[in-house]
Amino acid sequence: MAAAPSFYFDNAATTPMDERVLEAMMPFFTHNFGNPSSTHSHGRNARVELEKARKKIAALLHTSPGEIVFTSGGTEADNMAIWGAISAYGLQQIISSPLEHHAVLHVTEHAANRHNIPRNLLKVSTEGTVNLEQLDQLLQETPNSLVTLMHGNNEIGNLNDLKIISQICQRHGAYLHSDTVQTVGHYPLDLQALSIHAIAGSAHKFHGPKGVGFLYINSNKKLPPLIEGGSQERNRRGGTENIAAIVGMAKALELAQEEQEQHQQYISELKQYFASMILEAIPEVTFNGLSGHPSQSLYTVLNVSFPPNENARGMLLFHLDLKGISASGGSACNSGARLGSHVLQSIGANPERESVRFSFSRFNTREEVDYTISQLKGLYTN
Amino acid sequence: MAAAPSFYFDNAATTPMDERVLEAMMPFFTHNFGNPSSTHSHGRNARVELEKARKKIAALLHTSPGEIVFTSGGTEADNMAIWGAISAYGLQQIISSPLEHHAVLHVTEHAANRHNIPRNLLKVSTEGTVNLEQLDQLLQETPNSLVTLMHGNNEIGNLNDLKIISQICQRHGAYLHSDTVQTVGHYPLDLQALSIHAIAGSAHKFHGPKGVGFLYINSNKKLPPLIEGGSQERNRRGGTENIAAIVGMAKALELAQEEQEQHQQYISELKQYFASMILEAIPEVTFNGLSGHPSQSLYTVLNVSFPPNENARGMLLFHLDLKGISASGGSACNSGARLGSHVLQSIGANPERESVRFSFSRFNTREEVDYTISQLKGLYTN
Ligand SMILES: Cc1ncc(COP(=O)(O)O)c(C=O)c1O
Ligand SMILES: Cc1ncc(COP(=O)(O)O)c(C=O)c1O
Repeated sequence: MAAAPSFYFDNAATTPMDERVLEAMMPFFTHNFGNPSSTHSHGRNARVELEKARKKIAALLHTSPGEIVFTSGGTEADNMAIWGAISAYGLQQIISSPLEHHAVLHVTEHAANRHNIPRNLLKVSTEGTVNLEQLDQLLQETPNSLVTLMHGNNEIGNLNDLKIISQICQRHGAYLHSDTVQTVGHYPLDLQALSIHAIAGSAHKFHGPKGVGFLYINSNKKLPPLIEGGSQERNRRGGTENIAAIVGMAKALELAQEEQEQHQQYISELKQYFASMILEAIPEVTFNGLSGHPSQSLYTVLNVSFPPNENARGMLLFHLDLKGISASGGSACNSGARLGSHVLQSIGANPERESVRFSFSRFNTREEVDYTISQLKGLYTN
Repeated sequence: MAAAPSFYFDNAATTPMDERVLEAMMPFFTHNFGNPSSTHSHGRNARVELEKARKKIAALLHTSPGEIVFTSGGTEADNMAIWGAISAYGLQQIISSPLEHHAVLHVTEHAANRHNIPRNLLKVSTEGTVNLEQLDQLLQETPNSLVTLMHGNNEIGNLNDLKIISQICQRHGAYLHSDTVQTVGHYPLDLQALSIHAIAGSAHKFHGPKGVGFLYINSNKKLPPLIEGGSQERNRRGGTENIAAIVGMAKALELAQEEQEQHQQYISELKQYFASMILEAIPEVTFNGLSGHPSQSLYTVLNVSFPPNENARGMLLFHLDLKGISASGGSACNSGARLGSHVLQSIGANPERESVRFSFSRFNTREEVDYTISQLKGLYTN
């Protein structure tokens, strides 16, 4: 019997690690095990590599090493930015969107309550486009605000135009944070060219290790620590540095940027192939948000809305899983809760139709797509 | 030319990882890369191992899996316990000690200010013994308090009696957290037998990976999240689970507990050997805190106070480092700042005498000790 297929189309939830990343990490699991904060040779050997990693990441993002703080992931980075900005700058309003990841949505809600300031979530269209005129208006009324809007949406793939958003924020003098977890490593990010105060990244979204991320903090808008302890990260984040993972993240980002064009082209084409094939197989299919739109959505994400169907009713992901196909409904980060997707709800997606997010990486192939489409077609024409 | 020696006596700062731990982690860097929160097979394969790790750790600590929350390390766990307990239970006083790690000392200071409640640091003797009568008195006046006292001190090795402390706290109904980062894996901890509400652990202190730890939270005294986002860790800690590191921590704790007696005996004897040899070599040496006392201090830590000396003046660590010997002055976690040790200051250590913390693991040998002693002797008799 042939082995059952095992195809992974959930790269927005997490990506497999690149072999070269693991290779870069290995010395820190064996001989280079020192605590980077120790002053002796064991410590210095680790510290040197820590600062090399910081430099590398800073250079890739066109910023300076002193503006990069290592965290345990994207979630911690988002938490740190939001709590920190409000308390450091006495901000009087939070502006965000209902399409943000829970790491932003829950924290802004909580922070607005604790600080007793309003949180305004911008209106979004049925395609998931955020209303930037409303952003401008709200900032006119209360310029001293935190604006937190993501770059690429993890569920429907919509890309926000950070350039335009940052210009609006700059005009009013607002603090701008962006959850760039889905775009770091996948798109060029030039922090020198953008007027932005904080962005968050997470290594496991670009073939790096889990449990590590970073927060870029513009040196003109410093932030206080979220996690306090020793003087690590220039007193901005206590805790023994996760040196293996940090070096792995730097390597992953380096590879991602070096090979970006080539991967972008390959994955974009694969996504387009998937989109055209599924439309051919099940013509009633539509795409949620802008995910069907090549240039206005992440090239890694296709969120497919399936017509109501007897066989599949609420069980599409389950059937796919049985066939060895891993995809996601809504955000995998929250699927444990098995609540509906707040993103799809916010854009008024039809609850009668079932939605599945397919998200791609350079490790996916056309053969995997063909198999998946044929399985879906089977479910719909049985 | 023979290779220069490279001897590591800084195991209280961090420990080398056990090979078997790395082996346990490897699958999660290669094929088992799923996001444990995903519901498909890739996710479930990771989730199963995540929950096995939780069960293992819970069993080793004599508690239940639902009481273990995974964090990015000891520092995050301490932060979460302190902020969480005060806000969840409206505590009216913080009681701690000046000998705590900065992860407790800085956070309690900050939290007391923010919540506008007093923070009382217990008096300590010149040997670093915490005044528990004062604890009792302070709790009599304000029972609704947070008490946070560490188990084993990372600099002078002093062990607090958690049994007695927990009894005092229980009598008054106070919330008790303990930073057990230096004792988890090194001493048996039976959470069923102790009336304690929260303890913190960090894997890299017991031959596990850096960047991962846990907070035990007694189910009768639940705590809110510090880092919010997805519904991971039953809504108590957002962020994609660091599955490789968590599995590594569970393996490290399992090995540490299984082999505890044997390692304890070996390391205790090595420490005693070091103590007697250094006394023989430099008779004016004394030991800070209770670190010279076999049963009242960590068997891993010996904090040596050297007599004032022309050759060494302020340069002892530097000279040792040149000889390939890594040891620490004060807490390595803070040595980046190169401030004096707050612990040694608090017990009134003589600033004319130089102090070096030697901390041991099962990987150290008598030959390493002999070499180190002979180098120290050379410095003092030149
Ligand atoms: C847009 C977005 N923000 C934040 C996060 C959180 O990142 P992490 O789980 O690594 O903390 C994720 C993914 O989980 C994400 O997709
Ligand atoms: C007593 C104590 N508490 C807390 C910590 C912090 O642990 P981590 O650096 O893993 O966050 C350490 C060591 O750094 C420690 O020795």
